Amino acid sequence: MTWCRSEFLRLLMISVFLLGLGTVVFMFRSAEFSSPMPERPHSALADQMLKLLPEERLKNLFTYDGIRLFPKNQCKCEATTWQESYNFQDAYDLSELPAVKARRQAEFEHFQRREGLPRPPPLLAQPNLPFGYPVHGVEVMPLHTVPIPGLQFEGPEAPIYEVTLTASLGTLNTLADIPDSVVQGRGQKQLTISTSDRKLLNFILQHLTYTSTVYLHHKVDFVSLESKSSVVKFPVTICYPVIPKLYDPGPERKLRDLVTIATKTFLRPHKFMTMLRSIREYYPDLIVIVADDSKEPLKINDKHVEYYTMPFGKGWFAGRNLAISQVTTKYVLWVDDDFLFNNNTKIEVLVDVLEKTELDVVGGSVLGNVFQFKLLLQKSQNGDCLHRRPGSFRPLDGFPRCVVTSGVVNFFLAHTERLQRVGFDPRLQRVAHSEFFIDGLGSLLVGSCPEVIIGHQARSPAADPELATLEKTYSAFRTNTRNQVRFKLALHYFKNHLQCST
Amino acid sequence: MTWCRSEFLRLLMISVFLLGLGTVVFMFRSAEFSSPMPERPHSALADQMLKLLPEERLKNLFTYDGIRLFPKNQCKCEATTWQESYNFQDAYDLSELPAVKARRQAEFEHFQRREGLPRPPPLLAQPNLPFGYPVHGVEVMPLHTVPIPGLQFEGPEAPIYEVTLTASLGTLNTLADIPDSVVQGRGQKQLTISTSDRKLLNFILQHLTYTSTVYLHHKVDFVSLESKSSVVKFPVTICYPVIPKLYDPGPERKLRDLVTIATKTFLRPHKFMTMLRSIREYYPDLIVIVADDSKEPLKINDKHVEYYTMPFGKGWFAGRNLAISQVTTKYVLWVDDDFLFNNNTKIEVLVDVLEKTELDVVGGSVLGNVFQFKLLLQKSQNGDCLHRRPGSFRPLDGFPRCVVTSGVVNFFLAHTERLQRVGFDPRLQRVAHSEFFIDGLGSLLVGSCPEVIIGHQARSPAADPELATLEKTYSAFRTNTRNQVRFKLALHYFKNHLQCST
Repeated sequence: MTWCRSEFLRLLMISVFLLGLGTVVFMFRSAEFSSPMPERPHSALADQMLKLLPEERLKNLFTYDGIRLFPKNQCKCEATTWQESYNFQDAYDLSELPAVKARRQAEFEHFQRREGLPRPPPLLAQPNLPFGYPVHGVEVMPLHTVPIPGLQFEGPEAPIYEVTLTASLGTLNTLADIPDSVVQGRGQKQLTISTSDRKLLNFILQHLTYTSTVYLHHKVDFVSLESKSSVVKFPVTICYPVIPKLYDPGPERKLRDLVTIATKTFLRPHKFMTMLRSIREYYPDLIVIVADDSKEPLKINDKHVEYYTMPFGKGWFAGRNLAISQVTTKYVLWVDDDFLFNNNTKIEVLVDVLEKTELDVVGGSVLGNVFQFKLLLQKSQNGDCLHRRPGSFRPLDGFPRCVVTSGVVNFFLAHTERLQRVGFDPRLQRVAHSEFFIDGLGSLLVGSCPEVIIGHQARSPAADPELATLEKTYSAFRTNTRNQVRFKLALHYFKNHLQCST
Repeated sequence: MTWCRSEFLRLLMISVFLLGLGTVVFMFRSAEFSSPMPERPHSALADQMLKLLPEERLKNLFTYDGIRLFPKNQCKCEATTWQESYNFQDAYDLSELPAVKARRQAEFEHFQRREGLPRPPPLLAQPNLPFGYPVHGVEVMPLHTVPIPGLQFEGPEAPIYEVTLTASLGTLNTLADIPDSVVQGRGQKQLTISTSDRKLLNFILQHLTYTSTVYLHHKVDFVSLESKSSVVKFPVTICYPVIPKLYDPGPERKLRDLVTIATKTFLRPHKFMTMLRSIREYYPDLIVIVADDSKEPLKINDKHVEYYTMPFGKGWFAGRNLAISQVTTKYVLWVDDDFLFNNNTKIEVLVDVLEKTELDVVGGSVLGNVFQFKLLLQKSQNGDCLHRRPGSFRPLDGFPRCVVTSGVVNFFLAHTERLQRVGFDPRLQRVAHSEFFIDGLGSLLVGSCPEVIIGHQARSPAADPELATLEKTYSAFRTNTRNQVRFKLALHYFKNHLQCST
């Protein structure tokens, strides 16, 4: 048979008509979605606008107290008219410096290995992945098992679904009761689910568990979840919870069951005894712990004093560390041996602050002189830069006349457990103060309540000739000699891996 | 014109043929994806299979050493023929127990507030969200700024894109140089991007920054990213990095610049002197720190001994805490005052282990007796359950004859800084040992290398009558009286918030 020519033409005309109709409909639908506003030429605008802020604007963008707090490869410390700058490696002779640098680098690398540093770059999630999963907060104790919340698959319909999960520091399992044909690898590092039943797949995922199998502390396992070409990873943190170390305040909550007073003395027995007498005027039964590295031991007639002797001149921070190591109450009040309690020296106020806030340490003021300083750290490969500025960060919630800062005077109440955790470095034998707060940076939240005031004994020399001689010896030890300054700068260089400070 | 009937029939036959061909092709393609095995009826199977494993199987699923390590509301301690069980609240009189419970609960709540516990439930990501974002690893120091990596929008095409980011403990900004008509809220808690240019949107997101504005330690801010009805949240951790506390081993890496020996003695001067002499046979110049809470001070003629006196009978752990508080080297070797160094007592081997592994503490063996125990914790609302089992978790990487465990003997080398951070609780005055390892659970990674052996002085009474009397007094203090046992159980109840142990 042959095609009728006229029918062929008719078919052709109908096709052309349909094609034309389709085109019109298509154009109409596109028009619905276009912007009501006239658009400028699209690509030219984009090219013009894909640029970053110029350097001058960036420089001033993220500063605090004039210090740029934004990641950079190198930090620096610049001296100005109102602040000094210390370059810590200057503490070493040029001849010994290369060897010191090498040793510091070796010790720093050991430290980093043990801390799991440097951290791997952040784990990024791609868009439009067909998975639900836990972004943050899944923690498991070593060798324990936890359920993994939030796992789900919401990909396109398919005849068969195959989903694989992979862990490295643990194994996977599911609480769902299904045969091995559907789930393979139960109790292994890799678990695969194969099913055509989407509901079943999600039920299995909903009841997935992670078991930590390597006994380690402080690790993060990145578990991957994949199906066809889509992959997500999510973190499971392997760690112990913090073990509580609580103190019983006793049924009557007496101050002596909450607070111990701690101090250190050296070649100033008269000053210490004067301070002790002033304590007893207001607090007759608080335990006072005193560490003494003088030549001759003291005889103290006070049944609530705990007295400790040390090798002669062992040192200031060693004595501080000794004293706090002996405290058995929740809080410890640090005082220097030449302070004077008066009726503004309200320990109860400081206790109230620590009971009601998140502070670890709260300082008062000495003779009403408010001494507070902030510490700001800039990280850098060759050693960090530390900046110290007077003042505070912000007021303390609930205590409007108190502030949050980084460092205070040597009159403070502290959580014993937190204070012991940071400690006073016994390598600091003579003059030292801010080193303690630097060691505590990030660990101790420090506050200051200047209205709680302690007095200070006058610096006039003692009348008694024996005591006067003792005081002269004391002053000799107390002088911040050049050698001591060098020692402390070198310690900052090596111990804290610092480059410089302002 | 009219249709030719024959042409109509021809068209009809061609259509039927094409339809049939299409069906065959479709069925063939489906067949490619279906399982090679025959499937049972689909929906009936699903309903039948959405169940969890039965209780008997679950019970045995996640056990280690017979202890179930899976979260449960209540834990328990069961005594068996080979292990005892202690219920800690039995240490209190029934009359005082309610008050003790209330005080413990108050102290525990204070502890939790300060630690940010309990943690919020895990943050879950929904599937198919059109965003890329950082799942894990974005950290910022308080008051600092960090770039946020990985942010992108890959949603459907639209005339205008509007994306909003919201933070709570900080502010948001972008390094992109664009006018305020496109980005609003720069330097605020909420930042909104409105543009029709998708590339520009993603450029802005690529250069987004987070600035911490509240001075706090250890917090997590959950930043939300939303567009239309899609929302993701991702965590930004606000914390300081760990401040290094490194020790300079000196240019010659002498053992005395790496290791200090620490011990405590009480009413056993002859034993201590014997031990000291044995040290000096092998290590003539290592510093030995000794804390002494005896009645009479010792005279020690050794220029490398640092001697400290304490109030009489102040206590065992107080003395241990004192001694370690004075160490100025990277490592400290703990020994008891009645040990005996011999030529198997190789401190260098223990140093090598700590230098090369992640251990914080490595113990040896005393007289070749290997003493190791594991600690397993089960958390519970009313107090945790602690289980102690002999043995170890696994061998130590790189040291096949050493193992990883939770507790060892009193002969160990430790990282000074880590040991000081856990410390020995001065509330433990008399017999105590595992309490230190319990306090260190999760903080101290402990190992044991039994091949490093120290000797032990015989327990036979001294010949000298004065010393024999002293020994009798010592033994009286050393007896684990019922009161002391009660005290320690009560301490576990209150201080560590434990319920019981096996």
